[in-house]
Amino acid sequence: MPKFSSRGLNMPESPIRKLAPYAVKVKEKGLHVYHLNIGQPDIKSPQTAIDVLKNIDLDIFAYTPSEGNFDYKETLKEYYHSLGFEDLTRDNFIITNGGSEALSFTLSCLCDNEDEIIVPEPFYANYYSFAESIGVTIVPIVSTIDTGFSLPDIEKFEELITSKTRAILITNPSNPTGYLYSKEELQKLADIAVKHDIFLISDEVYREYVYDGLPFHSVLEFPELKENVIVIDSESKRYSLCGIRCGFLVSRNKKFLEIALKFAQARLSPSLIGQIIANAAHKQPISYIENVKKEYSERRDLLVKLLNEIPGVVCPKPKGSFYCTVELPVENAEDFCLWMLKDFEYENGTVMLTPAQGFYSNQEHGKRQVRLAYVINKDDITQSIKIIKKGLEKYNTLQ
Amino acid sequence: MPKFSSRGLNMPESPIRKLAPYAVKVKEKGLHVYHLNIGQPDIKSPQTAIDVLKNIDLDIFAYTPSEGNFDYKETLKEYYHSLGFEDLTRDNFIITNGGSEALSFTLSCLCDNEDEIIVPEPFYANYYSFAESIGVTIVPIVSTIDTGFSLPDIEKFEELITSKTRAILITNPSNPTGYLYSKEELQKLADIAVKHDIFLISDEVYREYVYDGLPFHSVLEFPELKENVIVIDSESKRYSLCGIRCGFLVSRNKKFLEIALKFAQARLSPSLIGQIIANAAHKQPISYIENVKKEYSERRDLLVKLLNEIPGVVCPKPKGSFYCTVELPVENAEDFCLWMLKDFEYENGTVMLTPAQGFYSNQEHGKRQVRLAYVINKDDITQSIKIIKKGLEKYNTLQ
Repeated sequence: MPKFSSRGLNMPESPIRKLAPYAVKVKEKGLHVYHLNIGQPDIKSPQTAIDVLKNIDLDIFAYTPSEGNFDYKETLKEYYHSLGFEDLTRDNFIITNGGSEALSFTLSCLCDNEDEIIVPEPFYANYYSFAESIGVTIVPIVSTIDTGFSLPDIEKFEELITSKTRAILITNPSNPTGYLYSKEELQKLADIAVKHDIFLISDEVYREYVYDGLPFHSVLEFPELKENVIVIDSESKRYSLCGIRCGFLVSRNKKFLEIALKFAQARLSPSLIGQIIANAAHKQPISYIENVKKEYSERRDLLVKLLNEIPGVVCPKPKGSFYCTVELPVENAEDFCLWMLKDFEYENGTVMLTPAQGFYSNQEHGKRQVRLAYVINKDDITQSIKIIKKGLEKYNTLQ
Repeated sequence: MPKFSSRGLNMPESPIRKLAPYAVKVKEKGLHVYHLNIGQPDIKSPQTAIDVLKNIDLDIFAYTPSEGNFDYKETLKEYYHSLGFEDLTRDNFIITNGGSEALSFTLSCLCDNEDEIIVPEPFYANYYSFAESIGVTIVPIVSTIDTGFSLPDIEKFEELITSKTRAILITNPSNPTGYLYSKEELQKLADIAVKHDIFLISDEVYREYVYDGLPFHSVLEFPELKENVIVIDSESKRYSLCGIRCGFLVSRNKKFLEIALKFAQARLSPSLIGQIIANAAHKQPISYIENVKKEYSERRDLLVKLLNEIPGVVCPKPKGSFYCTVELPVENAEDFCLWMLKDFEYENGTVMLTPAQGFYSNQEHGKRQVRLAYVINKDDITQSIKIIKKGLEKYNTLQ
């Protein structure tokens, strides 16, 4: 057998890899699986995006420029102007195959083998995968459920900075916790980035989905970060367009954009059709986003209330995104998630959850936790939580 | 200014990067630019692929499985059966964002930092970029224009194999030379791969476009390579669908597929719409491919004939793909390509060519060469070669 790379062999499995085959078997038995495990919204994509497909009048589906189509970048510029960043031009954007590619490009531009990125944890599990794939070390800084996942003291960050540190990476609002960074917290991170002249990378793909009337603050607001900020963005969650693979990078650092463009040129082109669809989605009236936000907000309220009514469950109220990370009254949440699929059903259904271990570098920290995505409707959320409650009751009599 | 990675700084520029701004200026002057520089076919995409867009009836453009959609993989299985590889099942395929991502995944699965891949050169310039982006060393083995770019002796390959060699990578038929590997040559490469237990990676995206009635041989034909073969494939060139970003990996090595799947999971999903379009393209009658092949074959004949009529030009007759690499009677082909855009016009037009230096590790080897893609119609080819002839005449009086 020929050899494989350590990076390939060490690449983490998807957090639901062990569970997925059992979910298939449950469905084969004719039972319903409530998917709280994946960030695939059930929200309809904007009508403008659906309609544009019918009106594409092209004979050849050709490459677009590596950095993205003129029209779509013009739309993104307008969108960012509407967010208050009126200095940005088309040249501040590079279109990518989803936010995933935006993050890959960024890490490759900044880091050589064994360089380091500081990331508050729990964090999006695939950050690990992208880092592992290019030999970058993720240095976690732990936030805990008992403080609602708020950032540790600034001193803790500074203790972690070494000569190999290239950036601090945050997701705001967070996947998997729904945590929303305050302006004060961002200011502290900005101060560190400037002081040590490292990048602050902010994954803001959930920026529209912030609740309770709270303001969202972008790292682009801090003028002192002009050369030190990279924003990862994507249309996937904003417009329920996960499958079109359309994301992008935003930066004011010209050198960064120049280097990122070389990575973009190597893979030739982002998706032509994806860009056409995304561009059309931005023509949808803003009421689309407002309605989706209202829906997520109501789902969150329902989910958090019902979860916290279950004895032993701890669910901090998330302020943004559509995830929450929850502590369960079990020794090992992954075992419980597996058991729910393999051995439990209630009223002809069961629930699939994501064990939270994969979102922590030290998996002990997430051992009793799961991540839930409130991307199913309220009736289904109510039924799901009922099933989880019944499941926990039975599971704990078996231990 | 914060720091960037060496891999980012060292990442090669696109071979036409210096030329591109001048092509824009030529067009602004109202002159025509004949693009022989890029592999973007002018061939119409299949009607089935165009029509399917109008009939997509989805409310949500959702993620597909990370390894690709069931239906599309089923179609690919059937397509590969039609090529004679009837043992392949859906599980032998992983769908990617273009052939580019298929190659990235492959290198990441096989190579750690400083591992080596042997590649006959001249080779597709972006192989360098993908290698550089993950710290892999490309070890070139030189083929030369005077032998029509045929493979060097087998001993030359063996001399290059070290404990860090993970694979031999070929493009068959070749970009940028149009070279077609004979069964005997492939057998030799297969023997080396088996003897040293390394992978043979074959980029076969141009397999349909082989001329003069010659047979195409895939590395999948060699049973002894069962565990040692990875095929890179893409719909971009086959169906003139470059912009949909739909490619894939084919292998019989289960461990490889398992590791590649982890990289695929990290970026979540290939393009939903790209897969729908590609799947539809395969429903087009085979006459589509036959007609395109006939057209390319006629263009090649015309281009090669006209080029070889120019004094001092050497153009080996390519047997496949839609490229040829040509030696010009100039000291520095890149300077000539720039001059053609900056300072020359004939009958209201000029020609954009790709300097071939970027396709060689030792750029001295390609210094007098350019790559041409015959992706424009015959009238335009005739006019282009006339312009190149006039350009060469004038250029050489100026030197």
